[in-house]
Amino acid sequence: MSGKEFFKVTTLEAVLELVSAFPPVGEESVRLDQSVGRILAHDVLSDIDLPEFSRATMDGYAVRAQSTFGASESMPALLAVVGSVGMGEVPTVSVKAGEAVRIATGGMLPAGADSVVMVEHTQSLDETTIEIFKSSAPLQHVIEVGEDLRKGEKILSKGSRVRPQEMGVLAALGRTSVPVYRQPTVAVVSSGDEIVPIEKTPTLSQLRDVNAHTLTGLVRLAGGAPVYLGIAKDNFDDLDRLLQDALALADIVLISGGSSVGSRDFTLDVLKGLSDTEILVHGVSVSPGKPTILAQSKQKPVWGLPGQVTSAMVVFHVMVRPAIESISGLSKDKLAQVLEVPAVLNRNLASVQGREDFVRARLVSRGDRFYAEPVLGKSGLIHTMVKADGLIRIERDSEGLEKGAHVNVILLRA
Amino acid sequence: MSGKEFFKVTTLEAVLELVSAFPPVGEESVRLDQSVGRILAHDVLSDIDLPEFSRATMDGYAVRAQSTFGASESMPALLAVVGSVGMGEVPTVSVKAGEAVRIATGGMLPAGADSVVMVEHTQSLDETTIEIFKSSAPLQHVIEVGEDLRKGEKILSKGSRVRPQEMGVLAALGRTSVPVYRQPTVAVVSSGDEIVPIEKTPTLSQLRDVNAHTLTGLVRLAGGAPVYLGIAKDNFDDLDRLLQDALALADIVLISGGSSVGSRDFTLDVLKGLSDTEILVHGVSVSPGKPTILAQSKQKPVWGLPGQVTSAMVVFHVMVRPAIESISGLSKDKLAQVLEVPAVLNRNLASVQGREDFVRARLVSRGDRFYAEPVLGKSGLIHTMVKADGLIRIERDSEGLEKGAHVNVILLRA
Repeated sequence: MSGKEFFKVTTLEAVLELVSAFPPVGEESVRLDQSVGRILAHDVLSDIDLPEFSRATMDGYAVRAQSTFGASESMPALLAVVGSVGMGEVPTVSVKAGEAVRIATGGMLPAGADSVVMVEHTQSLDETTIEIFKSSAPLQHVIEVGEDLRKGEKILSKGSRVRPQEMGVLAALGRTSVPVYRQPTVAVVSSGDEIVPIEKTPTLSQLRDVNAHTLTGLVRLAGGAPVYLGIAKDNFDDLDRLLQDALALADIVLISGGSSVGSRDFTLDVLKGLSDTEILVHGVSVSPGKPTILAQSKQKPVWGLPGQVTSAMVVFHVMVRPAIESISGLSKDKLAQVLEVPAVLNRNLASVQGREDFVRARLVSRGDRFYAEPVLGKSGLIHTMVKADGLIRIERDSEGLEKGAHVNVILLRA
Repeated sequence: MSGKEFFKVTTLEAVLELVSAFPPVGEESVRLDQSVGRILAHDVLSDIDLPEFSRATMDGYAVRAQSTFGASESMPALLAVVGSVGMGEVPTVSVKAGEAVRIATGGMLPAGADSVVMVEHTQSLDETTIEIFKSSAPLQHVIEVGEDLRKGEKILSKGSRVRPQEMGVLAALGRTSVPVYRQPTVAVVSSGDEIVPIEKTPTLSQLRDVNAHTLTGLVRLAGGAPVYLGIAKDNFDDLDRLLQDALALADIVLISGGSSVGSRDFTLDVLKGLSDTEILVHGVSVSPGKPTILAQSKQKPVWGLPGQVTSAMVVFHVMVRPAIESISGLSKDKLAQVLEVPAVLNRNLASVQGREDFVRARLVSRGDRFYAEPVLGKSGLIHTMVKADGLIRIERDSEGLEKGAHVNVILLRA
């Protein structure tokens, strides 16, 4: 008998395709001031024109543009100041040819005016007369009604992430609560006879449950709500019990550990024993992270992650995070939103054809580029992740990269 | 009389220098599972060797490397299997020349062994004999005692941000609570006679308080704890009262609004009237964002931000965020941690020498680079920020950039 195990290995691309088929979680409403980072569950249409009145964008004078045509330093236009508009006031005067009205940035344009002359281009001669030194075009230093948001227009798209500017749009529309997708609950289960809770001092041959904490942090950063369910021993009943608990409460389940062939088998056996469950993936052509399992149980994704902490982190970044984002309702076209940056490799890197390799690297900004500097050290060591800013992605068809090659680097940031 | 105002304009560089002089906030302890994104208030030294025992990193056989020297497919080495090590077990057997012990990934290396042969390079002949097809080097597929973290070594640095991998290191050390800097409280005050709370339907000439919400979101993303104190009318007493409240409770104060010369003057007057207060900056050579004020009151930074929402956002990204990070205790060398990405400009861009320009842009990933595509539209319009992925930074000495120029883009992400 050969000890070799057989993986029906799936490509990363195919895994990501499978992942995008899971349905998104339901919706909820959150207060606008709590909405940053959440994902919109509906398109947002504007029910107003913004601004609702034509506004000045500079301090100066509201005029008819044609009153200023031809004005210059040597031939200023002379205008009669017929009033002023205070902030928050509806103007009571109107502007005719040859007239000007004092106005402040944000002030409402009086009737008749179509342009604002910056105060810097004027000089007061007396209380009621100004000189204008520069010709002003129609609509110069003016924002027209509806120029920012137009009534009925789709302003924000379902599936996009709420950033401060999206909060600003919602505030402008008076939306105090925001319809967003729920944050998916992600159960984290550790497994392995040698794993102990971090509060315990491990005896020789035991290890603290590091994965529970790295995964909890990763889930939070990906927009999920982590729930840690504890450590299953390497036996069927223990893992089965925790997995049933996890499926009862969570939208996504992560089982880490089982790095040895034996304990991976437990995870597979337990999954195969569940009703309404299908093993979708057993083995992915990535390194590190090959022994990854993806199952679908009661419509929910269940991941079996490598026990080695750094491998589990890489698998999270390249597969689980996209899965969480997809189930969170994030639009497909937003999935890669600047989580990867281009860089230039600063030394040769070997890799194996037929799998995607992910190599820890520091990013050094020099001139107009990032340089990616691979972090040395065995791949299982967590200090190599601490030293890294990102993961260099080496494509499946590559036999290695030479110094100077252009690479994409997945950012490892909080 | 000329309406021109006088700004003693400060460079952005000088503002950032001033900002870094404010002392950091105090410390607190947080639970490890709540620590992601926080900033370490102390260096972390390892009080253990990790691993505490030599471990296998592959499933296979623990051997003395020299027992395998010269082994090949055609000339396999024959070894006697003298036992096995289960996960979490302390081995009871030792390994002598010509012997092998079955071991799983993560298992503790038995005495005498210095190398692990992958199961894929072996074949069982019978229960007690294996063939080995490949020579194995000493320490191959082994992590030695202390190879990841060494007792007494500084592992994490004060002032660095806690990412999932830093949580992993802390978990490995059994640290259930983490000493971090407090999140600075950031008071947000709006001002302006025309500004109404967003719940209200503005009458003609009024505007909803958009800045309060964009700033609240920006503060959260920068790691601060925002407190919104409401809207001050454009009069001395109202603003003075809110500002005193803000200084009593917050570590940093943001006053937005006052976009007109008149209301800016209120902010300045109120600040000048406070005890123990100094105006550090009035006007910064950036666009947008020139009319920015920075004061120091009772050792705390007070910012007067432009009233125009997009200008206030730009000022936040380029000045206020670095200030919040600095006061949060983030190391200076970490301030720029991949918040900017290099890109290639995809059309000509004008700019004015003597100031730094920040231009909204979409980022398009094409091949091995980002291309920055400026977003058209007047700078005051918030929809231009919604369409943007980042801000192109145009240096002070530039008279404009040509298509194809290399630029840095500040990311606008949640």
